[in-house]
Order: sequence, then C-alpha cells, then structure tokens
Amino acid sequence: MTSQTITLVNNVGLKPHAGSSDFDLDKAVKAVETSMLNIINSDIDVLRDASRHIINSGGKRIRPKVVLLSYVATGGTDIDYAVPPAAAIELVHTASVVHDDINDHGVVRRGRPSVNALWGRTFALLTGDFLFTKVYELMSPYGDLNILFARAAIALVEGETLQAAAVKNNTLTSEIYFKIIALKTAELFRAGAMLGAKLNDAPEAHVEALAQYGYNVGMAFQIVDDILDVIGDESELGKTANLDKDQGKGFTSVQEDDVMNNVKQKLMDGERLIQARLQAEQFVEWGISAIDVLPASPAKDALIDLAKVVIERQF
Amino acid sequence: MTSQTITLVNNVGLKPHAGSSDFDLDKAVKAVETSMLNIINSDIDVLRDASRHIINSGGKRIRPKVVLLSYVATGGTDIDYAVPPAAAIELVHTASVVHDDINDHGVVRRGRPSVNALWGRTFALLTGDFLFTKVYELMSPYGDLNILFARAAIALVEGETLQAAAVKNNTLTSEIYFKIIALKTAELFRAGAMLGAKLNDAPEAHVEALAQYGYNVGMAFQIVDDILDVIGDESELGKTANLDKDQGKGFTSVQEDDVMNNVKQKLMDGERLIQARLQAEQFVEWGISAIDVLPASPAKDALIDLAKVVIERQF
Repeated sequence: MTSQTITLVNNVGLKPHAGSSDFDLDKAVKAVETSMLNIINSDIDVLRDASRHIINSGGKRIRPKVVLLSYVATGGTDIDYAVPPAAAIELVHTASVVHDDINDHGVVRRGRPSVNALWGRTFALLTGDFLFTKVYELMSPYGDLNILFARAAIALVEGETLQAAAVKNNTLTSEIYFKIIALKTAELFRAGAMLGAKLNDAPEAHVEALAQYGYNVGMAFQIVDDILDVIGDESELGKTANLDKDQGKGFTSVQEDDVMNNVKQKLMDGERLIQARLQAEQFVEWGISAIDVLPASPAKDALIDLAKVVIERQF
Repeated sequence: MTSQTITLVNNVGLKPHAGSSDFDLDKAVKAVETSMLNIINSDIDVLRDASRHIINSGGKRIRPKVVLLSYVATGGTDIDYAVPPAAAIELVHTASVVHDDINDHGVVRRGRPSVNALWGRTFALLTGDFLFTKVYELMSPYGDLNILFARAAIALVEGETLQAAAVKNNTLTSEIYFKIIALKTAELFRAGAMLGAKLNDAPEAHVEALAQYGYNVGMAFQIVDDILDVIGDESELGKTANLDKDQGKGFTSVQEDDVMNNVKQKLMDGERLIQARLQAEQFVEWGISAIDVLPASPAKDALIDLAKVVIERQF
C-alpha cells in the first residue's frame, strides 16, 4: 500500500504524491459524483433537475474524501465498494444544504442560484426530502453500517435545530456553539471516517483513531466555515453571506425566519475570530495526532494534508 | 394460526373476531406507537416535543396495520420483530404530513394544531427531516428489506412533487392523478404489505399477492381521502379542508404556495365524486381478490375487513 499514489484534487490545494497510481482520489471523487447523479435520476423532472443542479454546483467534497481516504488508509482496495457510502454522506449533507437555504432564505449556494431561488420553497423542500430518501437506497446494501450512518444524519438535523432554537431563544453560548457544530458537522465527518475503516473490517483501534480524526477535522472545518462566512462576501464564499447583517437586523430583533445566519455573527465578532482560528488549529492538531496509530501510507499522508487544508482554505 | 383472535381497533370500525387471543392488533398498534415515541426521543426539546405532538395526535394507523396483518397472515408470530418496520412506515408517512402542512399552510392536522402552526415553518421543516432520519435508525437492523422500504419512501416524495408540479403547471389529468396517488400513497401501502410478508420469508406468491393487496387498498384509501377532503369540513376531517376554496382562489390563479390543495378539487367536483367512489370500490375489490391465494386465517379476514373499512369511513 505504501507504493500507492494519491492524486489529490487541486481545488482544495492538496499536493499530489509521486509514485505509481493504485489509488487516484480525484478519480474516486468523480465516481462519487457519478454515483450521486445516477441515484437521483427520477421520472419527476423537477426532482431530477433540482438535484442535478445542486450536485453539479460542486462543493469541496471533503466528506466523501474523508470516507475514501479512511478506506484506503486502513487497507481498502475495492474503491467501487466505498463509493456509494461516500456518495450517501455527501447526499445527506446536500439535502441539509437545500433545506438550510429555505430557512435562511439563501439565494446563492456554491456560486450559483440556490434550489430555493430557482424552483421556490415548495420544490426546494421536496428536493431535500428526495435527497434524504435517496440516501436510504444508496446505503441499503451496507447492513450494520446503516446504524452508524443513521445516527450521524440524526445528529445533523439535531445540530441544525439546536442552532435555530439557540438563536431564537437567545441562549447561544460558546458551549452551545460547540455542541451545535459537533452535531451538525463533526458527527458526520466522524461517521464518514469510521465508515471508511469499517468497510474493511479494520481493527477497532484504527476505527477509533479515524473516528477521532473525523470528529476533530469536522470541528475545525465548521469553525473555519463560520469564520469565512463572517469575513467573506458572496463571490468568495459561493453562498449568501451575512444575510442578516445586510438586512440591518440586530441579534435580539430577529424573527424566526431570519435567525439561522446570526449564530455565526454572534460568536465571530472582534477578537473571537482570532480565538476561533486558534481553536480550529487545535482541533486539526488533535485530528492529525489521533491517526498516529495508522501504518504509514500515501492515504494516511493525504488524510494529514486534508486536515491541514481545512484551516488553510480561503473560500 | 386459524385459532388466533384478531382484536381490531374500534376507531376505524373494524369488528373483533371471537376466539383465543394469540394476536391482538390493538395491542400491536400500541406497540408501534410506543416504538415511534421511543425512537423520536432527543436531547433537542423542540424535536422531541414537536414529534411527540404529531405522533400523539393519532391518525388511523392504517399503514402499520397493513404491515402487522400481512406479517401475521403469512405466518408471523414474533410481533416484536414486525413492530419497528411498521413504526418506520408510519414515521415516513408522518414526516411527509409535517412537510405537507408547510407547503399547504395547513394549520389543523388530526383535529389539533399542526406542527407548522405551533412551532413555525423552520422547526416544522426540521421536525420532518428528523422523522425522515429516524426512519433509518428503525430500519437499520432489517438488511435487504431497506431497499424495498427506501423505494417506497422515494415514491412518496415523487408523488408529492408530481402533485405540486401538475397543479402549478395546470397539467393535471385523470391519468396524472392516478400516477400521483400511486406514488404518494399506494407504493407505501404496497411496501408495507410486502414487508410484512418478507419478514417471514413468505413464499413469493404470497408476497406478490400482498403487494397487489397493498397497492389496491392504498389507491382506494387515497381516493376516499380526497373525496372526504372535498366534502368534509375541518371538524370532521381533523385537518384543514378546502383551504384554497375558503381563500376564494380559483384554480388558474393560485400561487406556488397555495397549489397543494387544489389537486383534489379539480378532480372531485360534480359527478366525478361518484365516479371516484366507484373507482375506490373497484380497487378494494381487486385488493381483496388478490389475497385469495393466502390460507384462511383471522388475520386474512382482518385484511379483508380493513380493505372494506377504507371505503366505508366517514372521516
């Protein structure tokens, strides 16, 4: 396995390794995208078109990369076997993004008009539901791994809800913020890394190491995402940034429909931005050290690079 | 099995059978409700409370009854094994109901305020998502049956979407109406009946017979539901009836947000009501004759009674 080459996708700034090409991450990610596009085919035009639109809008594909690299780093060689769970993880995230844009009134996502903006609220809601149900179909051959997957999807919805409730009730503290991002982001990264390992029946120590890796990298990823959301603008971020600030709404006066974006601002103003970046760096450090126990391999190196890129990204 | 008693739930007008009490449908439905209430427990108050609210609002529980009776009619005796899939079927339906009330602006559901009315749109959307993800957890131990289940859940969302699109684009015909109700209702009934049989590894002929039963009874159920929706009022139906008619909106002038209720009116005015009832009776007849091949049993009799009750119900 140490002779493998990991060809990394350039758009997140990862450096390709030299050597032979047993595993090509870029090619595997393309297979994940093909899997997503195949599974969302439907006779119902609007579901197919809206799903294609959001999938073809791109995104960093960091969650499937975590699944694929965790699979290869624990000895997996049958990439086709790892592709559907990697696609399922990305589809759950995509479903939540489509619904998030309804609640946030987001009109730009990944640099293109959101599903909500193009098809309206009713069809955006149904497209999100469609993606949520398509995930069942992708995961149905994977037996016991479904429970791991299910719990991460549940956590994602719980995290989104905790965020909306905390902002609405003005009970948002740093402690609750960390609980929110753990539920809505880190648990799915954690499940993805564990899935990658469990597809190989990897030793428990390796599964647990990757669980810690995924959790910590997920925490870092969300903190950086929130930092970029505060300091970014639409063209850099590819989604509607600072919607509430633009609308001139203060934190305490927001209505239910307008609460979702405020969570980031409350925590990210002033010096908190610096603290947040330091915290993200700490999570990345923990994530990387968690996989010390894994044998050396190009895939392990790629996991380390991926964690570093999470805090280096500018968009 | 022929010595079993099927004690039927009174609120849908089914008659209890005389005899010993090996299987108590009323008790099994209560176990399904307990399973649903247990699985939706969450640390996030609003998800737990909103989910409890909609589950405790009742409903006819006809889908879980189809699962349970199909299981017993094909020889199943371990009711606890059939309860989680029956609960999962009802939860998928419940999730779609919560989201449906967002798109329809429904404020009354099952005689109580809708989740949308009590918690607002953002939390109603997230509660529906929560229920969709909780279904994964319930079904995760059921291996290959997940694919059957997944496809029915996908069909449900496709049917809801086809309905919204057909009304929006003014392309609703009788043919499309039947496609809508097949997707949004009959496929889930069909999957429920098949699940019940497959939990026992029933012979293929019995699985197929129950598939036909479920499909036809589901078609009849939805037609009757639409008839009652047109002729009923809120107190009888327990949900917001004729929302658009009350708002004085004609068919061609409706906006995206207001389209969902119109589908029923377009098809159900005037003499079409009579045709529709005859059609429902025909589906029930087909459903009952499909299970001729099943051995005689109280559970088979209860399936026949259930089909008849579908067209007899007044609310």
